Amino acid sequence: MVLTTVPTEEFEARIETVRDELAAGSYDALCLFSGTSIEWLSGFHHLQTERPVCLAVTQDAVEVTVPRLEADRAESEAFPLIERVHTYFDYPGDDGGEYYVNPGRTPEDTIALMLDDLGVESVAADANGAPGFWGYSGPSLDELADVEVDTGEWITEMRKEKSSVEFDLMRHSAEWGNLAHRKLAEYAEPGKHELWVAKRASLDASMSMLDALGDRYDSHLRGGFPASCGFLSGPNTALPHGLTENRRLAEGDVLVTGASANVGGYKSELERTMFVGEPTDEQRNRFEIMLEAQTIGIEESGPGVPCSAVDQAVHDYMREQGVLEYAQHHTGHNLGMEAHEREFIDRGSDEVMQPGHAYSIEPGIYYPGEAGYRHSDTILITEDGVEQITYYPRDLESNIIRW
Amino acid sequence: MVLTTVPTEEFEARIETVRDELAAGSYDALCLFSGTSIEWLSGFHHLQTERPVCLAVTQDAVEVTVPRLEADRAESEAFPLIERVHTYFDYPGDDGGEYYVNPGRTPEDTIALMLDDLGVESVAADANGAPGFWGYSGPSLDELADVEVDTGEWITEMRKEKSSVEFDLMRHSAEWGNLAHRKLAEYAEPGKHELWVAKRASLDASMSMLDALGDRYDSHLRGGFPASCGFLSGPNTALPHGLTENRRLAEGDVLVTGASANVGGYKSELERTMFVGEPTDEQRNRFEIMLEAQTIGIEESGPGVPCSAVDQAVHDYMREQGVLEYAQHHTGHNLGMEAHEREFIDRGSDEVMQPGHAYSIEPGIYYPGEAGYRHSDTILITEDGVEQITYYPRDLESNIIRW
Repeated sequence: MVLTTVPTEEFEARIETVRDELAAGSYDALCLFSGTSIEWLSGFHHLQTERPVCLAVTQDAVEVTVPRLEADRAESEAFPLIERVHTYFDYPGDDGGEYYVNPGRTPEDTIALMLDDLGVESVAADANGAPGFWGYSGPSLDELADVEVDTGEWITEMRKEKSSVEFDLMRHSAEWGNLAHRKLAEYAEPGKHELWVAKRASLDASMSMLDALGDRYDSHLRGGFPASCGFLSGPNTALPHGLTENRRLAEGDVLVTGASANVGGYKSELERTMFVGEPTDEQRNRFEIMLEAQTIGIEESGPGVPCSAVDQAVHDYMREQGVLEYAQHHTGHNLGMEAHEREFIDRGSDEVMQPGHAYSIEPGIYYPGEAGYRHSDTILITEDGVEQITYYPRDLESNIIRW
Repeated sequence: MVLTTVPTEEFEARIETVRDELAAGSYDALCLFSGTSIEWLSGFHHLQTERPVCLAVTQDAVEVTVPRLEADRAESEAFPLIERVHTYFDYPGDDGGEYYVNPGRTPEDTIALMLDDLGVESVAADANGAPGFWGYSGPSLDELADVEVDTGEWITEMRKEKSSVEFDLMRHSAEWGNLAHRKLAEYAEPGKHELWVAKRASLDASMSMLDALGDRYDSHLRGGFPASCGFLSGPNTALPHGLTENRRLAEGDVLVTGASANVGGYKSELERTMFVGEPTDEQRNRFEIMLEAQTIGIEESGPGVPCSAVDQAVHDYMREQGVLEYAQHHTGHNLGMEAHEREFIDRGSDEVMQPGHAYSIEPGIYYPGEAGYRHSDTILITEDGVEQITYYPRDLESNIIRW
């Protein structure tokens, strides 16, 4: 069966790696406050809000502090590696009243008690306390608990090198993302609204995905589409991070699309430049330059190749073609659980591509007031070279919408 | 005409307030790194990524550092208060190559140069550098620039007291959120998939909103629905922050819904407990207790009332009814630009409700393995009392879905 979720053994292996690092650094515990990092390490995923959640991993224990509204999920069979759940009622926290759960304990008290129970004195952490998200404000970890705290970025660093399981989930994501993109191409035609096309396509692809996977679907979403697509159209495509406007398609429009799917918490990235009807010669020329720049980015990539060298090769080609002034960003970025992850395919990067890395390759050129041109494909770096997991056709003819 | 966007004069007034505070604190500048705070103060909104964006406000200037891919938007007429845009190419940044834009300047260099040009020595900031979002990692603001930095939460604090403009946008949001919710109630019936109902309703409501507003629609979205709704169903409703599952509706299901709309960057919150077909006596009883708890929350609220007193009144009622053990969270939270904002209607809160505050009122009771019961309405605190801006019927009969 195709993989749809990260198996428990994988989380066990991740925790073992963390324990080795804790021992090497003489830390008693790792404390995590980032929802994504907590999910990566323990499998427990939750909606991050102003209510602090803290995962603590020691040589002997995996425990978590959560608000009451996450306690039932944290304690459920879905997350077998969480050995103990410490619960506070809510943030900022009551004053010692008669709630049935840990009266009088604020989030900070609860985290402090968890660490005290665990006998923790020295802590490695992703941050010195919970992030100031949605209005949270509180003391730092070394103020609220009797511990010494070293902050660092191990989980972010560890997440850079994906396992074969993670690669499989990303390949699976690319498949459902491809369906969403195919539906987008089917529904797009002059007169149709951007939003209508994108959301109808996302809904059809998502329903197909849910019906195909059945009970094997592992939800990581609250709202959102399991398989999704969207696009900018017309002059708005000249803005790489433009907003979805109130706009209907017209013949002659350029589209810059995007599609993905969430499979077991993992993503892929597929983007295409498309034409509503026949492109002009100028549009064809710009498309072909963009396409060749992307091909260079894919072909230059591989194990042992510096990220900067890939970006430089794309840069050199753009300079040679006289389009450097239309570039607005580097060649790509790592991805997996989040839409962007480090490292970046940038001339200023010190990173070397390694087996286990996953990158978007997406050089673009943008003509203000006219249109932008960008494809994005997701590549996996393997021992042998590069595997491109997004496979929607890249050539110009395949990206002309006819109706 | 109904307001759909924050007028420029409002941003001017906000900047004046900040300048008074800067003078009072003897700071040369305020530096902001949070996308939401930057938008609140200057109107410039962008998709926050790993690429740092820094807004600097002094007594004489409003300037911003952005990556190249946001430069055209930042310089556009849409954001007239941004007087100067400082641009770096991308993150982490090139090594002095021949880009046409500020060769060799990293994001951090660019921020440092902006502050140096402005003659800034002492800075108040929302954070001592850009957040570690999507893999960003870099020096703190006082390391990268020759400035002294005091971090604080003024913008978060200032955002608590909404203006009449902000109240109007939230009222407008409630109107389109109501339409999304009405569509949800129309499409929900046994056999229909959760996702299909929620997304068809969101799409229909959004298309109505876009067609109604036309050019007056002020997009703050990249992807997403302008008007949206969603829900949990069946036993999953017993988890206040449960995930959207792969599930079709069945007769006897309880739904806990949510609906909102984004109008000029502002939101409202509407949630309802609904029944697919006739509820049982037990379900009716639980619904009525939840409804009375919410009514108490709304009626206790008002200018000069401590948030803790409102939560206490709800708490006392739940204890009296013997349902305290089924509560999993406090009564509500502030909202506006973000889904949750401080302060919180919590027994541990020191806040006193003031004219300009906007709160959700949403006490809930949750029966594990069976169902949860929660309505949420958005109230505005005015000089005279409370204005409830969400108006979908709250009573039981109106929330039974028949087909």
